[in-house]
Amino acid sequence: MKTETIVLNETRNVTLTAYRLDCGEGFGCVPKRPAVLVLPGGGYQMCSDREADPVALAYAKAGYQTFILRYSLGKDAVWPNPLDDYEQAMALIREHADAWCLYPDKIAVIGFSAGGHLACAAATMAKNRPNAAILGYAVAGAEVKACCPTAPDTVAQVDALTPPCFLFATRTDNLVPIHNSIDFMSALAAQGIAFESHIYAYGPHGFSTCESTIQDMRPETICQRTSHWVEDSIGWLRDVFGECSVNGMGEPLCPSHMNDDHEPFLSVACTFGHLMQNETAAAILQPMIDALISNLSDNAAGMAAAFDDSDGPSMVQGMKLCDLLAYGNISDEALQALDAQLHQIENK
Amino acid sequence: MKTETIVLNETRNVTLTAYRLDCGEGFGCVPKRPAVLVLPGGGYQMCSDREADPVALAYAKAGYQTFILRYSLGKDAVWPNPLDDYEQAMALIREHADAWCLYPDKIAVIGFSAGGHLACAAATMAKNRPNAAILGYAVAGAEVKACCPTAPDTVAQVDALTPPCFLFATRTDNLVPIHNSIDFMSALAAQGIAFESHIYAYGPHGFSTCESTIQDMRPETICQRTSHWVEDSIGWLRDVFGECSVNGMGEPLCPSHMNDDHEPFLSVACTFGHLMQNETAAAILQPMIDALISNLSDNAAGMAAAFDDSDGPSMVQGMKLCDLLAYGNISDEALQALDAQLHQIENK
Amino acid sequence: MKTETIVLNETRNVTLTAYRLDCGEGFGCVPKRPAVLVLPGGGYQMCSDREADPVALAYAKAGYQTFILRYSLGKDAVWPNPLDDYEQAMALIREHADAWCLYPDKIAVIGFSAGGHLACAAATMAKNRPNAAILGYAVAGAEVKACCPTAPDTVAQVDALTPPCFLFATRTDNLVPIHNSIDFMSALAAQGIAFESHIYAYGPHGFSTCESTIQDMRPETICQRTSHWVEDSIGWLRDVFGECSVNGMGEPLCPSHMNDDHEPFLSVACTFGHLMQNETAAAILQPMIDALISNLSDNAAGMAAAFDDSDGPSMVQGMKLCDLLAYGNISDEALQALDAQLHQIENK
Amino acid sequence: MKTETIVLNETRNVTLTAYRLDCGEGFGCVPKRPAVLVLPGGGYQMCSDREADPVALAYAKAGYQTFILRYSLGKDAVWPNPLDDYEQAMALIREHADAWCLYPDKIAVIGFSAGGHLACAAATMAKNRPNAAILGYAVAGAEVKACCPTAPDTVAQVDALTPPCFLFATRTDNLVPIHNSIDFMSALAAQGIAFESHIYAYGPHGFSTCESTIQDMRPETICQRTSHWVEDSIGWLRDVFGECSVNGMGEPLCPSHMNDDHEPFLSVACTFGHLMQNETAAAILQPMIDALISNLSDNAAGMAAAFDDSDGPSMVQGMKLCDLLAYGNISDEALQALDAQLHQIENK
Repeated sequence: MKTETIVLNETRNVTLTAYRLDCGEGFGCVPKRPAVLVLPGGGYQMCSDREADPVALAYAKAGYQTFILRYSLGKDAVWPNPLDDYEQAMALIREHADAWCLYPDKIAVIGFSAGGHLACAAATMAKNRPNAAILGYAVAGAEVKACCPTAPDTVAQVDALTPPCFLFATRTDNLVPIHNSIDFMSALAAQGIAFESHIYAYGPHGFSTCESTIQDMRPETICQRTSHWVEDSIGWLRDVFGECSVNGMGEPLCPSHMNDDHEPFLSVACTFGHLMQNETAAAILQPMIDALISNLSDNAAGMAAAFDDSDGPSMVQGMKLCDLLAYGNISDEALQALDAQLHQIENK
Repeated sequence: MKTETIVLNETRNVTLTAYRLDCGEGFGCVPKRPAVLVLPGGGYQMCSDREADPVALAYAKAGYQTFILRYSLGKDAVWPNPLDDYEQAMALIREHADAWCLYPDKIAVIGFSAGGHLACAAATMAKNRPNAAILGYAVAGAEVKACCPTAPDTVAQVDALTPPCFLFATRTDNLVPIHNSIDFMSALAAQGIAFESHIYAYGPHGFSTCESTIQDMRPETICQRTSHWVEDSIGWLRDVFGECSVNGMGEPLCPSHMNDDHEPFLSVACTFGHLMQNETAAAILQPMIDALISNLSDNAAGMAAAFDDSDGPSMVQGMKLCDLLAYGNISDEALQALDAQLHQIENK
Repeated sequence: MKTETIVLNETRNVTLTAYRLDCGEGFGCVPKRPAVLVLPGGGYQMCSDREADPVALAYAKAGYQTFILRYSLGKDAVWPNPLDDYEQAMALIREHADAWCLYPDKIAVIGFSAGGHLACAAATMAKNRPNAAILGYAVAGAEVKACCPTAPDTVAQVDALTPPCFLFATRTDNLVPIHNSIDFMSALAAQGIAFESHIYAYGPHGFSTCESTIQDMRPETICQRTSHWVEDSIGWLRDVFGECSVNGMGEPLCPSHMNDDHEPFLSVACTFGHLMQNETAAAILQPMIDALISNLSDNAAGMAAAFDDSDGPSMVQGMKLCDLLAYGNISDEALQALDAQLHQIENK
Repeated sequence: MKTETIVLNETRNVTLTAYRLDCGEGFGCVPKRPAVLVLPGGGYQMCSDREADPVALAYAKAGYQTFILRYSLGKDAVWPNPLDDYEQAMALIREHADAWCLYPDKIAVIGFSAGGHLACAAATMAKNRPNAAILGYAVAGAEVKACCPTAPDTVAQVDALTPPCFLFATRTDNLVPIHNSIDFMSALAAQGIAFESHIYAYGPHGFSTCESTIQDMRPETICQRTSHWVEDSIGWLRDVFGECSVNGMGEPLCPSHMNDDHEPFLSVACTFGHLMQNETAAAILQPMIDALISNLSDNAAGMAAAFDDSDGPSMVQGMKLCDLLAYGNISDEALQALDAQLHQIENK
């Protein structure tokens, strides 16, 4: 393993520390690796060592190339300085992808507390977005102004380009209220962005990797399940990036978006609710749905009710059309023909 | 272990099945146990066997007395029939607490899908509330009307009496949209109710306990972490009920409420934001805070900013007063005196 | 789930209790299941309830049909009465395989302490052998005579027909010395029988499933890893039986024997040491080995040393011939031809 | 984290690489840490990179100071050169304990394959013994001569000074036969040395930390439980060293020896069998045992049989005297008096 610290901005004291693992074609080795960029917390006043090396080591152990960004702090933390620091770091890492043996399209950021705010901003506002974001007890919302008055509320910034996110926090965090995580995941859900989230029953702010050398881990202090986030986040990265193994780089198991509602053209993988808002699509689908309901009505009266929206949103609105039509035993050919037809319609 | 099925309502075909473990004072035994009442899913049209025995067995293995309620279905599922079935079952269990060797104040409900809706209703609307609720891919919101038009949206029913909740679901559930879980936890957070939640990256609806004999568990079908909910929910019940062990019944590690904002009188365990809305409390606290900020200002200017709400809610609003004052090195005696003073003020 | 207790021998008070899970072709169900027969411990003087229901529930939760045998005790525990009880139970279970929805060739025994002795006897001496044996802090050796003077030392009985075994115990067991487990696994290794074993650093005798309602689980009393045996034994059964899932019954991943040294005829999957003891095989192999060594000698002198047995057993003796020849880049055709040749030679 | 490589022997190309974590009195930090010295495998012909950095990273993540020794290889691997390299490295580490922020009496070695042989030698033969040894698919026995003809069989070297050991291997290792691990643990048991051992059902040699970037981890290749050794070994080190945490350095939970049979004087924590071989002790104990048996005989006839050694070793021989006398309800005072009496008798 090679270690190196690169000064990104001398005036603002911004540095990038790299822990680079060996790569190669040899026995038990891989030619390239995915990477993680760590953004420690500290209220934009400091970069906590607790959330630097220990975090990098957790992902290095799992086979990732790891980097720690010490970004602009204190009086230098005027927005968008910290985000600019991120942009500079991410650009540098991607430029050196070959030299540093990493996949330029498999780079996650992980941020904690205020560093979590910066990770949220990177995921939602950066030109050079990460490919995944891990958000630890992140200051996602307007509370950020308490420690960095010029920093934006990132909840409002979640868009269709936001990469998959993994959120974790403790319910009783008494520094960053839990609604920060809830509001951010709610915005992700509204945009159809893939995410995973773990909110543990109780524990303090700032627990980092939950190693006993970093955090008092007695059960009276912190919910014992909290430590699971480390392994779970590694498993999740494998799901969204694909597995990096001696057998090669695998396909992702978890799609970035759960449906095609945000793609340029419509498809059978759009939700029923989304399709029916489009006049052209609705005209195609209405007869099919009428037939589906009338065929169902004999043996599955309850299913018909699923389409009824007289008392609010119907149960089927969030279902993908292909999943829905599967109840009507549609043939593969018919489904493909329908998909081709929908692909003609622009998604606006 | 003794098994028994009790008919609760012959007309509506409502039954309660009990799996009762041995108890006693003997070698390696406990005199009483906590209990779990299982509410299987099935769109209020059926009670799925997948979510009955396997779930009961998981908690029986962990030492719980377990019960399965098969509630009113189909045409009998007119509200409040299913909730009445629950009330009848819970009353019966609590009445027989001694005879059935269980703690009447340590009974959780666990419900899945539509059964999760019933569990939400039990937790928020019942006369005979459970002591904890586990909500699996629950239909919490208005979507319930698609399968039971007369059933209520339970998100709106969350109140200060709602017991601690444990929520789990998969992000890509294509039958019950994930916002059901998010909205319910958001309502719990707003009420200060203890909860834990796990939203896994991808997977189908209706995975039950994730045993391979019940659910296709291949990684291309379902996120492998999904199976963790079973052990995690058992650990969480231990946190909120206390550990039932051969050494006796332990104290809960996780409080039901994370602060005293919902107690009848104020205290130092209320949040700063809540206290400052009360005129009497604000008059007491303002001078203390002014002193705290002025003392901090030399060495922790950032902390002062935490109180600034000119750009939105200040960072300290969600902090408990006792945690906040710890930054100012308040003495134990002064804190106790302040607590006594606040306890004179009614919380309204 | 159906429960039933069958009296096997009224005079000796022998009973078989069954917990039978539902089966079928329906939604989320399997047509048949593997099974586990539980043999509780108690020094052949009692059958401990701690090692009965809780153990059956652990495997029932995992989808197994489970049975508890309460065998001959005290003055009735004259050998071979307990083994006869086992034979009767296993015969009955296999006869009812269809009616009770289980696979007759996928039945494990699990025994604890003295029940572990009976499980060792079943695995090594019974006419009706189990398909796998799980041995918990088992009295495998001559110590059994202290609690049942007529019972045999089972270590000496391990033979080529012994099924795969899973052993677990705590190193500091102060009732059954750890050499019982070591000696039994040593005998299994000598016979080439598949096994897995976990000896945990410290803990008492008789911990059963390590649920806190059964055993004092504080870390000062017992090594916290001890509880892993339950899940690990379930994973191991899956490895040796194949996975029982909604996708069908899978192939075993772990072979019963690690090589063909105990098969009726020789093969390339016999160990090199075993083959060279056979004159006919040695005559075929010697020239191949000479060529292999002489080709290796340029670039891998160390490998040649691996064949040198002047200072004791050579490193390659325990290697399978096919693995060994892979170092010499033998072609698939040549390997198959050699295998066919060896299959002509009787293994004696 | 600081990294440094120190040349120990230029002629033989021996180096020590250090990964040293930050220490201090600050927020979330510890003043000193336990340490691990890694000995990679490679048949004394090479030092495998697979078993170097990835192993060091696993323990660094867990908070250990870590070191990798690249010892004498090939023609330089004439015994005792590799052991001398170890002695030099361990002496250097202990000398720099303060400067490098580590506990000089909490240093483990971990060795793999041939490096496992060196770890066995360090644990049993070195002047400067480690405080614990982790032995991965170690060449413990005479097989070592195949790759290093001058190296000793370490099984025969296990003595009363051997530190606690943690062993792991796969049952089907086709390079280092499993009896290496079994024989070594058998020798440890005979000497009363604390150990933990995990033998997994199947898998290849040389799997290192089981990360997918190092080892093909598909279930058809390797038993999935094999990867557990990493976390389990870290938990075990915590048991034998005590927990290093922000709350201070804790007491060990697992004693180095399971009884006092190897202490200079006798005590009630010696085994009954050991005490009865000493004439003076036997004269004291025989009347107590006679009384114990005669009191038991009414209600626990089976217990009396536990003392009967007419058919081989009696059940109670391996029990500690204090545990045994607990069955006779001996008073604390009487037990202390007896202990004082036994402490007068030299253990020879």
